Amino acid sequence: MFYFQCDYNEGAHPRILERLAETNMVQTTGYGEDEYCAHARDLIREACQAPAADVHFLVGGTQTNTTVIASALRPHQGVVCAESGHINVHETGAVEHTGHKVLALPANEGKITAEQVAAALKGHRDDVNAEHMVQPGMVYISLPTELGTLYSLAELTAISNVCRQWGVPLFVDGARLGYGLMSARADVTLPDLARLADVFYIGGTKQGALFGEAVVITADALKRDFRYAIKQHGGMLAKGRLLGIQFETLFTDNLYFDLAAHADRLAQRIHDAFAAKGIPFYVDSPTNQQFPILTNDMRQALDRNFLSDFWLRLDDNHCCVRYCTSWATKESAVSQLVEAINAL
Amino acid sequence: MFYFQCDYNEGAHPRILERLAETNMVQTTGYGEDEYCAHARDLIREACQAPAADVHFLVGGTQTNTTVIASALRPHQGVVCAESGHINVHETGAVEHTGHKVLALPANEGKITAEQVAAALKGHRDDVNAEHMVQPGMVYISLPTELGTLYSLAELTAISNVCRQWGVPLFVDGARLGYGLMSARADVTLPDLARLADVFYIGGTKQGALFGEAVVITADALKRDFRYAIKQHGGMLAKGRLLGIQFETLFTDNLYFDLAAHADRLAQRIHDAFAAKGIPFYVDSPTNQQFPILTNDMRQALDRNFLSDFWLRLDDNHCCVRYCTSWATKESAVSQLVEAINAL
Amino acid sequence: MFYFQCDYNEGAHPRILERLAETNMVQTTGYGEDEYCAHARDLIREACQAPAADVHFLVGGTQTNTTVIASALRPHQGVVCAESGHINVHETGAVEHTGHKVLALPANEGKITAEQVAAALKGHRDDVNAEHMVQPGMVYISLPTELGTLYSLAELTAISNVCRQWGVPLFVDGARLGYGLMSARADVTLPDLARLADVFYIGGTKQGALFGEAVVITADALKRDFRYAIKQHGGMLAKGRLLGIQFETLFTDNLYFDLAAHADRLAQRIHDAFAAKGIPFYVDSPTNQQFPILTNDMRQALDRNFLSDFWLRLDDNHCCVRYCTSWATKESAVSQLVEAINAL
Amino acid sequence: MFYFQCDYNEGAHPRILERLAETNMVQTTGYGEDEYCAHARDLIREACQAPAADVHFLVGGTQTNTTVIASALRPHQGVVCAESGHINVHETGAVEHTGHKVLALPANEGKITAEQVAAALKGHRDDVNAEHMVQPGMVYISLPTELGTLYSLAELTAISNVCRQWGVPLFVDGARLGYGLMSARADVTLPDLARLADVFYIGGTKQGALFGEAVVITADALKRDFRYAIKQHGGMLAKGRLLGIQFETLFTDNLYFDLAAHADRLAQRIHDAFAAKGIPFYVDSPTNQQFPILTNDMRQALDRNFLSDFWLRLDDNHCCVRYCTSWATKESAVSQLVEAINAL
Repeated sequence: MFYFQCDYNEGAHPRILERLAETNMVQTTGYGEDEYCAHARDLIREACQAPAADVHFLVGGTQTNTTVIASALRPHQGVVCAESGHINVHETGAVEHTGHKVLALPANEGKITAEQVAAALKGHRDDVNAEHMVQPGMVYISLPTELGTLYSLAELTAISNVCRQWGVPLFVDGARLGYGLMSARADVTLPDLARLADVFYIGGTKQGALFGEAVVITADALKRDFRYAIKQHGGMLAKGRLLGIQFETLFTDNLYFDLAAHADRLAQRIHDAFAAKGIPFYVDSPTNQQFPILTNDMRQALDRNFLSDFWLRLDDNHCCVRYCTSWATKESAVSQLVEAINAL
Repeated sequence: MFYFQCDYNEGAHPRILERLAETNMVQTTGYGEDEYCAHARDLIREACQAPAADVHFLVGGTQTNTTVIASALRPHQGVVCAESGHINVHETGAVEHTGHKVLALPANEGKITAEQVAAALKGHRDDVNAEHMVQPGMVYISLPTELGTLYSLAELTAISNVCRQWGVPLFVDGARLGYGLMSARADVTLPDLARLADVFYIGGTKQGALFGEAVVITADALKRDFRYAIKQHGGMLAKGRLLGIQFETLFTDNLYFDLAAHADRLAQRIHDAFAAKGIPFYVDSPTNQQFPILTNDMRQALDRNFLSDFWLRLDDNHCCVRYCTSWATKESAVSQLVEAINAL
Repeated sequence: MFYFQCDYNEGAHPRILERLAETNMVQTTGYGEDEYCAHARDLIREACQAPAADVHFLVGGTQTNTTVIASALRPHQGVVCAESGHINVHETGAVEHTGHKVLALPANEGKITAEQVAAALKGHRDDVNAEHMVQPGMVYISLPTELGTLYSLAELTAISNVCRQWGVPLFVDGARLGYGLMSARADVTLPDLARLADVFYIGGTKQGALFGEAVVITADALKRDFRYAIKQHGGMLAKGRLLGIQFETLFTDNLYFDLAAHADRLAQRIHDAFAAKGIPFYVDSPTNQQFPILTNDMRQALDRNFLSDFWLRLDDNHCCVRYCTSWATKESAVSQLVEAINAL
Repeated sequence: MFYFQCDYNEGAHPRILERLAETNMVQTTGYGEDEYCAHARDLIREACQAPAADVHFLVGGTQTNTTVIASALRPHQGVVCAESGHINVHETGAVEHTGHKVLALPANEGKITAEQVAAALKGHRDDVNAEHMVQPGMVYISLPTELGTLYSLAELTAISNVCRQWGVPLFVDGARLGYGLMSARADVTLPDLARLADVFYIGGTKQGALFGEAVVITADALKRDFRYAIKQHGGMLAKGRLLGIQFETLFTDNLYFDLAAHADRLAQRIHDAFAAKGIPFYVDSPTNQQFPILTNDMRQALDRNFLSDFWLRLDDNHCCVRYCTSWATKESAVSQLVEAINAL
């Protein structure tokens, strides 16, 4: 059985395990104040062309989203987000648990537009009863989205401009950022992102690390006391070096990007196989997640050897499933899946 | 320079790294529902002689404390705790962040007594204006305490009895549990703890793991929906297997206990060296943390080669410092420290 | 200028002011433990035919909604609600501020159906990843709704049945309850409501009192420690007697119901005047709020002497406005408004 | 039986009831945006000699404290306070419910000193592990304190200076402010307070109003979006005019101050009667609360006709009780109490 249902089925890229073993008995101070973290921060700042950015390492995505959002908002503020956004649907209300409403906007293929954001921000400011409503205090988007889709540079720039016009910070969830940046269709670079977002994170968990997310804060207003927020949210790893070592490795010799490009290329092979059979897609994703619409028979046939993730039922005979590739996906596994698709 | 200032200066015990490497490319489902976690749970239930206990794995101590406490309390309830308790002083108000007051009691060598707990619980119930005050809804103690001291079986039993009399669950923070259980002066066993506490955790971070804490819930009332709480607090590791593999290793061949005994024995050597010089202690700790009271000259002399943790200043010429040993502390490092103490 | 834009433009019914003056210098204990509150509770239990119900008095609607919901839910739970529900749109995220997501369902004329509720509750329970999502822990409806519409006895019974089937309490926001119960089209009585809801409140602020809402808790599970919740949410009025005296007065000699009937009758006159002119309505409300769709000219003409509440713009030339009546609305004011409508 | 156990046993000063009756049928807009509120704000700004201050009206003390504190703090911050402070002991953890720790300092007769505050603020800033602890983000004192004692102008100035030195706002709880300002021993004036505090409130509930507290914000940083905070905490009264009318009346013709002076004078009579009998006091209060230490026999004798508030037991034969006077206390009632004291 081959697992294609998510991008965190394995451990870490071997170079990471090697580095953890090599450094295992070196004694360091805790809580991310060691030299590995310092070096990893430098590498990330360099890759972002953001020498003044603050870089912090957290363990997982929900923790990261919650910490960033709760640290930025005042109590009466909420975070604008696509209704399909991860914080709105799959984090057990972690944002609300810190006291803030998620202000969900209708999404198109997982994305929201600058026009929608502008309407939400302007609409609130113009309302005579604004204080009876939650004030939009941050805008959250995912890149790529939960459906694998991408914001173009033009779209991202437009959203960023609206946010700056209204003085509301833009936060980009990059749990799968590498897969987005390395897509054949991507025109956003890491420096673009660092320039256009006020805070974002570079996902490690789904992209070669055992775990870990690197938060990059470019807006000065969001930098203050962020380590308090990390500690308060239970995200300050005692052996913070584990995060430093992993990101140091990922940002050495282009590893992070190479691994992402590998996954995107394999996802494209799967995409092309489905497309060649005339099988439609729920959404047109150019990244490591593919969402074909299968008949019950097709799904049953493929599930025999290739585990996919049930996404949603469309009608009695059709459902959408998700196939994920990752840094760990083997070319041979994809070849076998492609054969199986061809044989449908 | 040798580090004695805390017990998380290194990575993990080599057997853990080996197991992580061996299992690295095995594909599993995420979020702790894999077979490694299942096996680790069984091993822990067995070690606790608690076949009906729920076992959950979290990443760090603050996260674990907050998740357990917030999951157990109703909004108007608080948690009773020694004023020196970790949740009261060193977690950036994480418990309060979830809405609950820490009801701190004066501590003696880091400990509170059954009498104090009874007075707090009974006092609240008897107060005619009770509803104007926070209701005690849980009792939290640390074993060993933040000062390395231990509750005897008699003391623990007495506290447990008071809690059960008043219907308030007892939560034991076991961030350094092994060091407590393996102390030469300990008379509490893991099955005792599982019998007397309603929920407790077995610390991994400070005792041989890269990271990880195993929560053991024995009280049925606290079991329901605990996985929601983990997810909401950002503690559900995507690659939950990493926790399962680590605890599986620690609870195989007595490793967890052997490592703790090693650290306790080395701490005793340090203790005896200070005592032989007539150097007093801030607190009489039988576990892996030692708190001698040093003159400024002594401290300066020792700090040259042996990093300790400044604890508190007692007067112009004296302060208390902390020396920690751990599973990773080398016999030879302790021998050199002992020599340096002898030479004071 | 006549005010029709809301139902809290005046003070209180004169009998309430008289009773406040009469009792002014009587000395009582505070916090709702006086004899006026005790008597008012008895009158309300009697009117509800719910002798075992707990009755508590709070000051305002947002406070009441938040206190009831936060007291009932565990941290990982949210409250199911129509997307137009007051808690979802007009309480500055007070529910989220206490840590809980509002799980909004699409509404039809302000209402949700038993089928929608069942789908939400069942859907969550059936989801294999349920713990990644907020668990529905309460269902909230408004009677009448924010658009003045009513749940029939059949509809309310169906929702109640679904809630009981899934073990989720039903909370009915009765900020304008009297206007709902006394509508010519109502078939739900106060005892029906007490029987079908687990907790609800009887609004005073908009129905003759200076302020005040009476929470009626019929489900035993929700009764425990509710006074702690009131105090914690800042809702325990020091001079609680003020609430007791007001509800005592409202529930003596049928005053509460007579005042509501008066407002409903006047609203119907306004409704009929618009209907006679062929002016359409945004929603078909049988209670004290009417939502005609006016052209810009019509609106301008009426606004000269009759203040209405702008509701929403429908197109360049049409908008929906709200006319409210209340216990305080004068027959003569309505007559003049009707004349003005006739003259459009 | 005469009630002396608190200062909220009656309704409101008759002039307030009269004004409520006179204005009852005037139609106004809601939520504190009416002309009565506007006028009351002007009167308060004038009395404070603070023309740029923002003034908001809330219903009760716990609500006011929570709203002010939660609005001012970031999530990782707490509020410094005397351990006997109202927010620390008698508000059911309302501050913690909004996510913030109360950082309690040992109190002397209900007061804390500038030195203590400076040590707390400096100590935190100097700590190398500061981010593991709650950051002091506000200082809260009560004037008069919960024990009736007063801060002198010198003491208040010193605390204010420390707060400004460290950039931490000073919040003064004035639930009984009038009784403090009018004490024979007071040297702080309302303009002093407005100059030295960043935010404070003028209590109405215990000083002649039915209910109501007037928050005065002088620091610009605390003004922004405060109405959102009021609404979110359930403190925005629909008929806000009720608060405006009450404070307008209290701040007309010196009523607020005259009523407070009346209560203070009567309290002094009670004080002098106890002192003349050689009965000691738990604390030396120059305001409307008196705390004599009575033998069991004395207490029993007085309790026959004069209700006092049990404060705390000192030994088997002695306890401290509280006698309160208020704007409503009758000279004749005090005369009878004095006679009874003389007869002990």
